[in-house]
Amino acid sequence: MNEVLRQLAARKSVRAYTDEPVTPEEKQAILQAAFDAPTAGCQQFYTILDITDQALKERLAELCDHQPFIAAAPLVLVFLADCRRWNQCYRAAGLDPRDPGPGDLLLAAADAVIAAQNAVTAAESLGLGSCYIGDVLEQCEAMREALALPPAVVPAAMVVFGRPTDQQKARPKPARLPAEYIVCENTYAEHTPAQHRAAFAARAAAGQKPAFDYDAYMRAFAARKYESDFSREMSRSAAVYLKDFQGWDQ
Amino acid sequence: MNEVLRQLAARKSVRAYTDEPVTPEEKQAILQAAFDAPTAGCQQFYTILDITDQALKERLAELCDHQPFIAAAPLVLVFLADCRRWNQCYRAAGLDPRDPGPGDLLLAAADAVIAAQNAVTAAESLGLGSCYIGDVLEQCEAMREALALPPAVVPAAMVVFGRPTDQQKARPKPARLPAEYIVCENTYAEHTPAQHRAAFAARAAAGQKPAFDYDAYMRAFAARKYESDFSREMSRSAAVYLKDFQGWDQ
Repeated sequence: MNEVLRQLAARKSVRAYTDEPVTPEEKQAILQAAFDAPTAGCQQFYTILDITDQALKERLAELCDHQPFIAAAPLVLVFLADCRRWNQCYRAAGLDPRDPGPGDLLLAAADAVIAAQNAVTAAESLGLGSCYIGDVLEQCEAMREALALPPAVVPAAMVVFGRPTDQQKARPKPARLPAEYIVCENTYAEHTPAQHRAAFAARAAAGQKPAFDYDAYMRAFAARKYESDFSREMSRSAAVYLKDFQGWDQ
Repeated sequence: MNEVLRQLAARKSVRAYTDEPVTPEEKQAILQAAFDAPTAGCQQFYTILDITDQALKERLAELCDHQPFIAAAPLVLVFLADCRRWNQCYRAAGLDPRDPGPGDLLLAAADAVIAAQNAVTAAESLGLGSCYIGDVLEQCEAMREALALPPAVVPAAMVVFGRPTDQQKARPKPARLPAEYIVCENTYAEHTPAQHRAAFAARAAAGQKPAFDYDAYMRAFAARKYESDFSREMSRSAAVYLKDFQGWDQ
C-alpha cells in the first residue's frame, strides 16, 4: 500500500480540535488542492466561502443542527454549487444564456464536492483533521441570508478543519459495509432482507460490536437520522433551493 | 509540498489508455479507497456499478453523448446515489420509512461523489489515469434500463480508468481560474463584468494562450457546452430523476 492509499485509509472525521490555528500556508495548500481537482469542462462550477468571521461561524453552527464544534473549528469552508457565475460570464460577453436547470445543479454540486474531497485529502496529508457538515443543506432561507447567496447558488458541502485532539486521534475509524454489498457487477441488484442483515452484522463484527441486534439498531438509527426533524428539514430546504432550477419536468 | 499534494496537483483527466488491463489488485485498491471516503453518518449512500460487460460499456459510451473512449477504458465505475437501499434496510427491520426527498438525494449524491474522488486519487497513486463522465446524468430512461436502476437510485458520477498513453502523459493540465475569483471571505460576492474578464484573461495567460479574446471564447464555449443539446438533455433527464423525490415543495 502506497502513502496515498495509506492516508485515504487512515482518514476519519475529526470533530474536536486543539487550539492551534491552521496556518495561512496550510489553508493555501488546502484551497490549491481543491482548485486542482477534476472539474467538468474545466469550468470550476463552485465558489468557496472561507468563513473567517467568528459570529458567522457561530451562526452556521446554529443553522447546521446546533453543532457547536463547527464554531470552534479554525478553518471552515463552504463549497457552493454555483450555477450563476458562468451565466454572468456569458452575459458579460453580451450573450443571453438559458436559465440553469436541475442537470446544471447536479453537475455543479458534483464539481463542488469533488473539490471539497481534494481539500479533505490535502488536509489529512498536512496532519489536519476534517469533518463534512451535511446539515449545510438545511434552513435554506436563513442560510441564504447568512451567506448572501444569490439565486442558483446552493451549498453543496461544508467542511471544517483543525488539528485533531489526542482523543480524536485515538478514536477508531468506523467500519464500512462489505464490498460485495456495495458493489454490483454491471447492473443494479437489489439485496434480500437476509443480505441486508448479513451486511450489517459483518460491519458490526468488523467494528468489534459483537452484541449487534439488527432490528433494534435500525429502529434507533431511523429515529436518530432518517426520521429526525433535521433530515426532514433537509429535504424541505433542498426543495426550496431546487425551485431556482424549474421548468424542465414537462 | 508533500507527496499527496504533489499528486493532487499533477492529476489531470486521461481519455486515452494503453492496452494494459487494470489488475484485480489495482481495482480492489481503488474500490477500497472509495469505501474509506467520508460518508454521512457512516451510511455509504451509494452503490458502485463495476461495468465489466463490453456491450454495456459500448451502450454507456453511446448514452453518454457518444464518447467511444468510454468503451475502450479497462475500468468503468458508476457511482449511484442510492436513496433506496437504506429504506429497504429499514423495511427489513419491520419499519415503514418515509419516501426519500430531494435533501436525501443531494446528500447521497455528495456521498457518492466523495467516494468517486477517493477512487480517482487512489488511481493516480497507482499510475492510472481517470476521467469523470458528467454525461451519465443524461438519457434517464435509457440509462435506467441499461443499468436496471430502481426508483430513487440516480447516477451521481461515472469514472473511467486506464493507463495513460504517452501522448496523454505529455498533455499539460489545463490552467485554473485565479484563487481570488473562486474564493470569497465569509459571504458570496458577485463579480463585475471587468472581474470576469480579468479572471479568464489570467487563466489564459497561465495556460500560455496569449491571444485570448473573452467575447469570442464565451460565444464559442456557450455554444459548445451550456447551450448544447447534451447540456439541455442533462437537465431534462435530471428533472425525470427528481420526480422520485417529490412532494416537499409545498
